[in-house]
Amino acid sequence: MKELNEQSSNSLNDELVIAADLGGTNLRAATIDREGRIHERTKHHTPKAERPDEIVRAIVAAARECESKSVERGAKVRAVSVVVPGTVQVENGVVTKAPNVPSLNGFRLAAVLESELQWPAILENDANAAAVGEMWQGAGRGRKDIIMITLGTGVGGGIILDGKLLRGVDGSAGEVGHIGVEPFDGAPCTCGSRGCLEVYASATAIVRMTREMGARYPHSPLRTSDELTSAAVYKSGTEGDELALEVFRRMGLYLGVGLASLINLFNPEMIVIGGGAAAGWDLFITHVREQVTERAFPVPARRAEIVQAERGDDAGILGAAHIAFETKR
Amino acid sequence: MKELNEQSSNSLNDELVIAADLGGTNLRAATIDREGRIHERTKHHTPKAERPDEIVRAIVAAARECESKSVERGAKVRAVSVVVPGTVQVENGVVTKAPNVPSLNGFRLAAVLESELQWPAILENDANAAAVGEMWQGAGRGRKDIIMITLGTGVGGGIILDGKLLRGVDGSAGEVGHIGVEPFDGAPCTCGSRGCLEVYASATAIVRMTREMGARYPHSPLRTSDELTSAAVYKSGTEGDELALEVFRRMGLYLGVGLASLINLFNPEMIVIGGGAAAGWDLFITHVREQVTERAFPVPARRAEIVQAERGDDAGILGAAHIAFETKR
Repeated sequence: MKELNEQSSNSLNDELVIAADLGGTNLRAATIDREGRIHERTKHHTPKAERPDEIVRAIVAAARECESKSVERGAKVRAVSVVVPGTVQVENGVVTKAPNVPSLNGFRLAAVLESELQWPAILENDANAAAVGEMWQGAGRGRKDIIMITLGTGVGGGIILDGKLLRGVDGSAGEVGHIGVEPFDGAPCTCGSRGCLEVYASATAIVRMTREMGARYPHSPLRTSDELTSAAVYKSGTEGDELALEVFRRMGLYLGVGLASLINLFNPEMIVIGGGAAAGWDLFITHVREQVTERAFPVPARRAEIVQAERGDDAGILGAAHIAFETKR
Repeated sequence: MKELNEQSSNSLNDELVIAADLGGTNLRAATIDREGRIHERTKHHTPKAERPDEIVRAIVAAARECESKSVERGAKVRAVSVVVPGTVQVENGVVTKAPNVPSLNGFRLAAVLESELQWPAILENDANAAAVGEMWQGAGRGRKDIIMITLGTGVGGGIILDGKLLRGVDGSAGEVGHIGVEPFDGAPCTCGSRGCLEVYASATAIVRMTREMGARYPHSPLRTSDELTSAAVYKSGTEGDELALEVFRRMGLYLGVGLASLINLFNPEMIVIGGGAAAGWDLFITHVREQVTERAFPVPARRAEIVQAERGDDAGILGAAHIAFETKR
C-alpha cells in the first residue's frame, strides 16, 4: 500500500499542463505542474496570419517543444490551456472576438488543438487567466475575492468572486477598462464609447496625455520626443519632469475613480494592478488611494487592499494551468 | 404512502414566512407562502425611535398581527425575515449601518427578534431583497443573472449572479447608486463623493435638477412650484413641459452611462429598474437605451434586457420571504 500511495503522489506531481499565452506580438508557452512550478518555457513571435491554420501550427509547435523537454524527465501532459487576447466561449472552446488576432474570430480553437495534440484543450481570456494566476501564485495568494486590472496597450480586467471567475452570460464580463469615468467630455475609446477608464489608465493613454498636455510644459524634453513610450514618461517623472508627473497624476485620479466604483460594487478583498503601465506605480498610486478614500464607502474602502501584481507576464500561463488542473473531466 | 405524501405537500404549502420591510417612513409586514402568495398584510408608521426597543416592539406587533390572522387558517410560521434600509451582516443578523433608522446601527436585530418571537430571524438589505423578489415573483422570473436598480430617495442596487446575491466580503457590495458617472464636475453626493449615479437618477435628483435648470426655462410652471416632487415633474413632462423633458433626458443620459458600465462589468441577462422615480419610465428610457447602445460592448448590450420592475413595494417582502425559505437550518 505504501508503495502505491507514493507512486500515485509522484504521478500527481509529474502531471503537467502545457499553458500557452497567445499575445498580439508574442506566443509564449510553458509546462507547469500542480504546485505552480514552471518547468520548460519557450517564446516565439505570433504569426501575422490571415488564416487560423498558421496560428494553430505555431501553438502546436510551441506545445511540442515544451512537451519534449518535460517528457524526457518522465512527466505526463494532462491538458493544453490557451490564453487568448479576446472574448472566448469557455464551454465550447470558441474564440468569439480577438481584435489583435482577427483570423481566430469565430474559430473553434480548442477542438482543433485537441485533434492535433490529442490532449484536452481549454481556452481562456487573457485578463481572466492573469487574475487566476495572481490569485493562485501571485499577489492574491489565499484570497477569494479579487479584481485584477491590467494596464497595457488597453486596460483589461478579471474579476474573481468567491474563488470563481465572473464570466457573465456570454463570457464577456469583467471589462474593467470600459467603465465610463469621464463619459461626456472624455477622450474617444477604441471600443466606440468615450471616457472609458482605458483612455486614462493604459500605456497608450499615458503617451496620448503626454502629447496633449505638452504645450503647457514648454521646458519638458518629453514635448519633442518622437518615439514616446509610457516607460520614457515614467523615467522622466522619476527625474522630476513636471509634464510626466502631471500625466501620472491624471492617470491616478481616473484610476482611483474607477477603483472607487468597483469597490462600491464588489466589496472585494483586493485589487491587483499589473501590466506594463503598472511600472509607474510610485508616480500614480498616491493619487489612486486618495480618490478611493474620498469616493468609496468607508468599510469596503478600508477592506480593499490595492497591490501590485507579482507574476508579470507569467500570470496568464499560470492562470491557464490552474484552470486546466481545476477543470473536471 | 399516498396519504403521507399528500400530508407533507399540504404542510409545505401551509408554511409561511413573516416578512417585514422596515422603511424610513413605513413598516410593512406580510405572511407569504412558498409559492409567493401574500396572505395577510399590515402597514404602520416606522417609529421615530432613539432606542432600538421601540423598533423591535413595532416589528413584533406587526408580525403578531399577521400571524394571528394566518394561524386561524391552520398555517405554520417558519421564520421572520426583515428587510432593513442599510447594510447588514447577514450571517450574524447585525445591522451595520442604517442612515434612516440610525438607532439600529450596530444592533443585533435578528437575535432580539428570535428571542421575542421564537422563530428563526433573518436580516437582509432592502435593495438586495427587492432584487430577489423581482427574480422570484416579478420581472426577472426564470432569470439567474440580474441587476436590480431602485430609483427612490437614493439609488439602491441588488446584484444577482447565477441565482445568488453578490454581497461582497463585508456585505456591502451592490452599491449601484454610487458608481461615479460625472466624477469631477458632478454634484456632491450624500455618500461624501461627487457625481455618483444617485445624484442624477434618484427622485431627489429629479427635483434638484429641475430647480437648477429652471432659470433656462422661464415659461415652465415648475420654476415657481414650492413643493416640487419627481411625480410633479413627470406629470409636467407628459404635458410637454420642456424643463421637465430636459430633466428626464439628463437623468436618462446618466442612467444610461451607469448601465453601460454595469453591462460591460457583469454581462447580465437583465436589468430591472424600480422605485418611485421609475414611474418616469417613458420620459427617460429612450435616452438610457441610446447611451447603452453607444457605450456598452455589442454582445452584452444586446443581451441585457432593460425592464421595469413589476412588484413595486412588495418586491422587498417577497425577496425576504424567498431568502427565508431558501435558508438551510
